[in-house]
Amino acid sequence: MAEKLTSRNQDYSKWYNELVIKANLAELSAVRGCMVIKPYGYAIWEKMQAELDKMFKATGHENAYFPLFVPKSLFEAEEKNAEGFAKECAIVTHYRLKNDEEKPGKLKVDPESKLEEELIVRPTSEAIIWSTYKKWIQSYRDLPILINQWANVVRWEMRTRLFLRTAEFLWQEGHTAHSSKQEAVLEAKQMNDVYADFAEKFMAMPVIKGLKSESERFAGALETYCIEALMQDGKALQAGTSHFLGQNFAKAFDVKFTNEKGKLDYVWATSWGVSTRLMGALIMTHSDDNGLVLPPNLAPIQVVIVPVYKGDVELNKISIVAIKIKNELESKGISVKYDNRDNFKPGFKFNEYELKGVPVRIVVGPKDIQGNSVEIARRDTLAKSKVEINNVVDTVSNLLSEIQDSLLIRALNYRNKNITIVDSFEDFQSVLNEKGGFISAHWDGTTETEELIKKKTKATIRCIPYNNEQEDGVCIYSGNPSKQRVLFAKAY
Amino acid sequence: MAEKLTSRNQDYSKWYNELVIKANLAELSAVRGCMVIKPYGYAIWEKMQAELDKMFKATGHENAYFPLFVPKSLFEAEEKNAEGFAKECAIVTHYRLKNDEEKPGKLKVDPESKLEEELIVRPTSEAIIWSTYKKWIQSYRDLPILINQWANVVRWEMRTRLFLRTAEFLWQEGHTAHSSKQEAVLEAKQMNDVYADFAEKFMAMPVIKGLKSESERFAGALETYCIEALMQDGKALQAGTSHFLGQNFAKAFDVKFTNEKGKLDYVWATSWGVSTRLMGALIMTHSDDNGLVLPPNLAPIQVVIVPVYKGDVELNKISIVAIKIKNELESKGISVKYDNRDNFKPGFKFNEYELKGVPVRIVVGPKDIQGNSVEIARRDTLAKSKVEINNVVDTVSNLLSEIQDSLLIRALNYRNKNITIVDSFEDFQSVLNEKGGFISAHWDGTTETEELIKKKTKATIRCIPYNNEQEDGVCIYSGNPSKQRVLFAKAY
Repeated sequence: MAEKLTSRNQDYSKWYNELVIKANLAELSAVRGCMVIKPYGYAIWEKMQAELDKMFKATGHENAYFPLFVPKSLFEAEEKNAEGFAKECAIVTHYRLKNDEEKPGKLKVDPESKLEEELIVRPTSEAIIWSTYKKWIQSYRDLPILINQWANVVRWEMRTRLFLRTAEFLWQEGHTAHSSKQEAVLEAKQMNDVYADFAEKFMAMPVIKGLKSESERFAGALETYCIEALMQDGKALQAGTSHFLGQNFAKAFDVKFTNEKGKLDYVWATSWGVSTRLMGALIMTHSDDNGLVLPPNLAPIQVVIVPVYKGDVELNKISIVAIKIKNELESKGISVKYDNRDNFKPGFKFNEYELKGVPVRIVVGPKDIQGNSVEIARRDTLAKSKVEINNVVDTVSNLLSEIQDSLLIRALNYRNKNITIVDSFEDFQSVLNEKGGFISAHWDGTTETEELIKKKTKATIRCIPYNNEQEDGVCIYSGNPSKQRVLFAKAY
Repeated sequence: MAEKLTSRNQDYSKWYNELVIKANLAELSAVRGCMVIKPYGYAIWEKMQAELDKMFKATGHENAYFPLFVPKSLFEAEEKNAEGFAKECAIVTHYRLKNDEEKPGKLKVDPESKLEEELIVRPTSEAIIWSTYKKWIQSYRDLPILINQWANVVRWEMRTRLFLRTAEFLWQEGHTAHSSKQEAVLEAKQMNDVYADFAEKFMAMPVIKGLKSESERFAGALETYCIEALMQDGKALQAGTSHFLGQNFAKAFDVKFTNEKGKLDYVWATSWGVSTRLMGALIMTHSDDNGLVLPPNLAPIQVVIVPVYKGDVELNKISIVAIKIKNELESKGISVKYDNRDNFKPGFKFNEYELKGVPVRIVVGPKDIQGNSVEIARRDTLAKSKVEINNVVDTVSNLLSEIQDSLLIRALNYRNKNITIVDSFEDFQSVLNEKGGFISAHWDGTTETEELIKKKTKATIRCIPYNNEQEDGVCIYSGNPSKQRVLFAKAY
């Protein structure tokens, strides 16, 4: 085991980067801003994918796959969307390399292979998908179309951080088409609810559901629904967004349908996505100075069994007990690793599984076997207890649920304690700098004020929460009348 | 339902294209050579992925994810590999668009965003992965590395066909690193066996396992193992390949390890992949002039229940029976669709599910309910039979296994009948043109002869089968001595 992690208090950002690397989740690659997701990190992402995919299918969606590339003429068709992504997209201009005469053994771009029309590597797929939906939709009978895609996308970000902001990332993007505005709005809200449920039930991460302000909306959307989470350093993280796109893309790609009354109308649209960014959110919500803390529902290894022994005779005795426990736990659908590697000491293994966030550790030593018990340690609180061997399976099974619940409660308490109501810009600034977290404050509703606050403080409006209380007040910045408080925060 | 499919006899190629489109599997996109995989096609691919993924994990592999882009300097490091793909790769040269002053509302590539080093969209990932493995490998203790990746890749093919050859396709690529040649060779063979098992057990597609001749090897491999299938038109299809890469990539990227004796050595490598091309193989192995024929193990819908009725009263009575059957089948893990759509006639539905290849159809009408029976039709033979309602679940469950087995046997019989032994070039040509299929013929072992045969006949050496009988003979083309027969065919 390498030296200890930097502590969160010392340098949160450094702690995060070290943790991602040391826990073998991901690392930077030879390509600027692109990451390698390592097997342990990918295993967590696979669990997220599996659960989300079930939830999408349970709400009537099907998966499909659309091209990686978007021809420039399609990319620019919906102007706001194009404008939003134009400055950060990878562009394919040629399709062939040839030998470089000046440098034997090296290759260069063959100028004769220049494409007539450039291809944009998708930063999001509305354009390519709506150019396809045009062919699929004639009548209201063809609607709704409820499609999701698991894919990689590229946004040429200048400042990147593992999982949180990378030039290429993995995500899912839902793209739906509807015959009425109402149905599309309900769909967009429904998927934001699905994201919130996933965050709470699987990631044990509480989120606030709300609407984005105009300036924070997805480029091309009429309304963006979102879920916002709070990290341990008091910064907010946008964990998922769901967009009501109105008829913008239908108009850009001329997608009309005949409604039940026989009249032509433009199709209504939504899109919604979550990405490998959720990995960053997961890490920063629960982990501590010893390493990763994973909620059992997403842990690739839920239980690790470590034998403590001297010599083969002891190991054999312990292994009989350990393997029996392993089999019984696995028969209950719990994933278990029995780590009987002989070239590492127990203490090393303890550190390793703490670093990797395995929720429950079972230690079996010779004395335990004599006493007919084992030691069980939980990763979240680091608490240990002795448990009779006969009770191990029930205890562990209950403990996993308890850990899952208690992680959510802990995160929820933290989040709730860090929503501060302020009524002056002075308080706003001091809370932001000293305490962090969400700040609930009156805002006059204008983009100008929002921008000025952002410039002065780096805080942005994270969302206007659902069912937000309407109350007359005064904008903390402009002093103009305000009808409601919104949530501000510095954000990832 | 649109007009009937072109028949296979009339025009096999046209039949294939029409079937892919009409069964809603895939279609061409707005991007040259790239396809849209539609939900029904993608559902089949998802089933393939799920089974393959289980098989990879059962043989000790983990999933990970590496970048989409390969910097040119890494791409060209392994020269043979680079040479093999240089002429068909999409190249990213810029990272930003800007407003086109001459065309308001349009965008153009910002020349100031030119990349210092071009990025190749991965046609395969050996280069980016081995540049990463270099960081992961120091000692024999770090080996083996057994990683698989599910990803999209791009090869700029000029002549494309849905699923069979597309500019972008989906695949998995395994990339493993080993401390000995023997271990790497065993790994490459093992994965070829996994592919063969998958093809036979799930796709009901018999394959011949063998080695590629030198000229047909993967660029950069020392040996390519493959599985070769035979399509209904007598053309072969390479369904999967597994490569023993020797130390080529380790040398290109300077990846050395300290072995158990403390000496430095280059790491041994394999890579192996199957792609959405398997969809084409699946379609062409079993389908007929009525449409798709899917093996039950990969069918998204295994059983469809169609009610035949007049009016709501009859439909309600039938629905009670149908839903009971559906629930019972589903409790056995069988996927069932009850199609009670009122705006389509039974005949239309029958055609639709035949076109979509649903293995078993259950028809329930008012007379059936009176007689306490239903009609069961199997898609592969189109045979129908009456079955007592109480026996439906057992009958269907057995029938699905029977269909799975019988599809494999049918395909195997066809394949075996179409391996022809020839001993002269004249016979070779006439068999190739009249009968097609695999031709087992003596070959002198030289690339020159292979090339000449290919030029004259378009037939290539598909493989040198495993455990090939060694017999002295005379090359059908050159007349030079030969030690074994190899399998030739025209191929997709």
